[in-house]
Amino acid sequence: MNVHLNRRYRFSASHRLHNPELSDEENRDCYGKCNNPHGHGHNYTVEITLSGEVDPVTGMVCNLADLDGFMQSKLIERFHESNLNQDEFFRNQIPTTEALCRRIFDQVEHNFSDAKLERVRVEETSHNAFEYHRAGKRFQ
Amino acid sequence: MNVHLNRRYRFSASHRLHNPELSDEENRDCYGKCNNPHGHGHNYTVEITLSGEVDPVTGMVCNLADLDGFMQSKLIERFHESNLNQDEFFRNQIPTTEALCRRIFDQVEHNFSDAKLERVRVEETSHNAFEYHRAGKRFQ
Amino acid sequence: MNVHLNRRYRFSASHRLHNPELSDEENRDCYGKCNNPHGHGHNYTVEITLSGEVDPVTGMVCNLADLDGFMQSKLIERFHESNLNQDEFFRNQIPTTEALCRRIFDQVEHNFSDAKLERVRVEETSHNAFEYHRAGKRFQ
Amino acid sequence: MNVHLNRRYRFSASHRLHNPELSDEENRDCYGKCNNPHGHGHNYTVEITLSGEVDPVTGMVCNLADLDGFMQSKLIERFHESNLNQDEFFRNQIPTTEALCRRIFDQVEHNFSDAKLERVRVEETSHNAFEYHRAGKRFQ
Amino acid sequence: MNVHLNRRYRFSASHRLHNPELSDEENRDCYGKCNNPHGHGHNYTVEITLSGEVDPVTGMVCNLADLDGFMQSKLIERFHESNLNQDEFFRNQIPTTEALCRRIFDQVEHNFSDAKLERVRVEETSHNAFEYHRAGKRFQ
Amino acid sequence: MNVHLNRRYRFSASHRLHNPELSDEENRDCYGKCNNPHGHGHNYTVEITLSGEVDPVTGMVCNLADLDGFMQSKLIERFHESNLNQDEFFRNQIPTTEALCRRIFDQVEHNFSDAKLERVRVEETSHNAFEYHRAGKRFQ
Repeated sequence: MNVHLNRRYRFSASHRLHNPELSDEENRDCYGKCNNPHGHGHNYTVEITLSGEVDPVTGMVCNLADLDGFMQSKLIERFHESNLNQDEFFRNQIPTTEALCRRIFDQVEHNFSDAKLERVRVEETSHNAFEYHRAGKRFQ
Repeated sequence: MNVHLNRRYRFSASHRLHNPELSDEENRDCYGKCNNPHGHGHNYTVEITLSGEVDPVTGMVCNLADLDGFMQSKLIERFHESNLNQDEFFRNQIPTTEALCRRIFDQVEHNFSDAKLERVRVEETSHNAFEYHRAGKRFQ
Repeated sequence: MNVHLNRRYRFSASHRLHNPELSDEENRDCYGKCNNPHGHGHNYTVEITLSGEVDPVTGMVCNLADLDGFMQSKLIERFHESNLNQDEFFRNQIPTTEALCRRIFDQVEHNFSDAKLERVRVEETSHNAFEYHRAGKRFQ
Repeated sequence: MNVHLNRRYRFSASHRLHNPELSDEENRDCYGKCNNPHGHGHNYTVEITLSGEVDPVTGMVCNLADLDGFMQSKLIERFHESNLNQDEFFRNQIPTTEALCRRIFDQVEHNFSDAKLERVRVEETSHNAFEYHRAGKRFQ
Repeated sequence: MNVHLNRRYRFSASHRLHNPELSDEENRDCYGKCNNPHGHGHNYTVEITLSGEVDPVTGMVCNLADLDGFMQSKLIERFHESNLNQDEFFRNQIPTTEALCRRIFDQVEHNFSDAKLERVRVEETSHNAFEYHRAGKRFQ
Repeated sequence: MNVHLNRRYRFSASHRLHNPELSDEENRDCYGKCNNPHGHGHNYTVEITLSGEVDPVTGMVCNLADLDGFMQSKLIERFHESNLNQDEFFRNQIPTTEALCRRIFDQVEHNFSDAKLERVRVEETSHNAFEYHRAGKRFQ
């Protein structure tokens, strides 16, 4: 019996969308107010989707306490109340929410092996959400 | 790097479910109170899912300002505070939320080409949602 | 020990804002798209606030089963999937959400006596809500 | 035209996670506070996803009144304000939310034939959700 | 400048509504399914409302880190994933949500003095909420 | 007939909590991670509560189109996708959400006279909200 598990985490952070290889005018054209030099911010929601066989002894896909421990210590504390542009992850990359999904996906996939990572979804506002799916899956 | 983008829009409209080819009794049997002759209404939420490669220059799948401009001017202003039965889209079709998903899908697919349209989801109430998926995809 | 109880109900209805004593132009100026002749609609949420002493035997302010029975049979079934302009309540009154709050307040106050009615709140959309408070109370 | 329909139901129940084949210490290690002997509880949300061709006469995938009738009488009334450990379904199975998804999936699939069952999703809290998908579909 | 601060906490617990001084039949009549002998449960949300002058040095009414520390260690950990009927608070009292509001109010008022406690609100489900207000205030 | 109207607006912004009159250590002690030098951010929700007599001609407390026009042009566009520390309002004041409530209250009260301003509520996250009430009212 294969089941999918979705678990949500929240953090608040700021970012500025700006590509140093573009002119100031090109940056404003591309990013609008998101390019304002002092940044802006969001309450982000991260949803992790894992799949796996339900363990016949425990009745669970994976132990949520383990997933929570990993996510809080490795990712949520790192991002919460931070400026994403200052994060090592985004030293050479623009901290769009698309990029954030991918960074989180890679971290979870390489470091948390209790179940198969299927998707990382990040909601930036109540109107926007981005998702990175395991390669070769859904919609491809 | 392929990412999915979900963006939400809201409008308030009324509709009446009634098939002129059925008798009044058949209509009441089929649609219940949704067939009442004076109509009723909802706050609809539309969620557009697009997918695409993340542009290495901008870090984005598509520019949300462009998607918002298209959606507001072509669809949301049209539907907001209207009666769907009066809309040209539903001249020969019953304005169920199933039909609404398909109409929105076709409009976005034919007129907005910045990324690939994967799905249109319309929530009619907090308990109901309908989705039209790109043909040949998921669950088929 | 005096406690306040809030209970929510939902219904979907349509309405049109139009005052027959105003000209068509005045109606459009005043109500904008809400004046469109075919109406539009909403998912309404009604929140009833009652207060009272906690009964030492039951530990409750009032029995929710009784409140639910009253609300469903007398008000929610009446409004759900209806057009408010056709309702007897609004024969001589414009069915704004302000007026709806008052109508619901009067019905509950006169017919449900298990606890003291303090407030009726009606949410028209996720961005709008109106409240009618017991006379002489808060903010007056 | 194939459309997906999602419909939500809610119930409140208690459960205790405990495997009688494990020692008390193993149970505490595995389930933490969820193993406390007197149980705890949740407000569960069940989302049923059905797919099918839109009926050209009714404009609908399936009649929601029929789905609601089935779900309320066969499942929601059964679970609402109950202790899941006492339910026949969980006589020989630990009532994790993973197991609950599967039990609901099997009941709907075998007894409600108006459209194809694709998925059952159960939200245990605002931070957790589990999904059981039709075999051989998505992510497999 | 006097400001009100609202802060939310969540816990999941079970309870059974039963008055040992009433007969079994009276209990069933009064509490319905909430009287079932094995209990049921909820995801509770607690909202604490404090008021006070904004400190001219910090710009804050009170330090949220202190409030969170108090609430988590004294109340939320105590209730989370527990059975309220087993709690010392409810040894001689039926664990209705009305009673829970009052118990939380008294604990916060007597033990957390950084700002004035105005109200405790507990949401039992998305449709029900109860509130205990400081004596002599609003609606009295 | 006196009715209260609540209307919500949303914006995303960043801020840093730091008092230049305190030492770096005192700032960290007081504000924790909110003092991080590069700031962080939130999706803010502003709720405006107005009260007034319902106009017998229009059936409304005030015209929402007028309130929306005022709020969007004077406040929401100003704050959206900005850094609050750079705003003229906070040149000599720490941009806590307490201070933001008061600033918005003063702007609305002095510049929007169609109904009486009762309260400004700002939600900083789904767990925190602050309110500034008209002087001499509720809880004082």
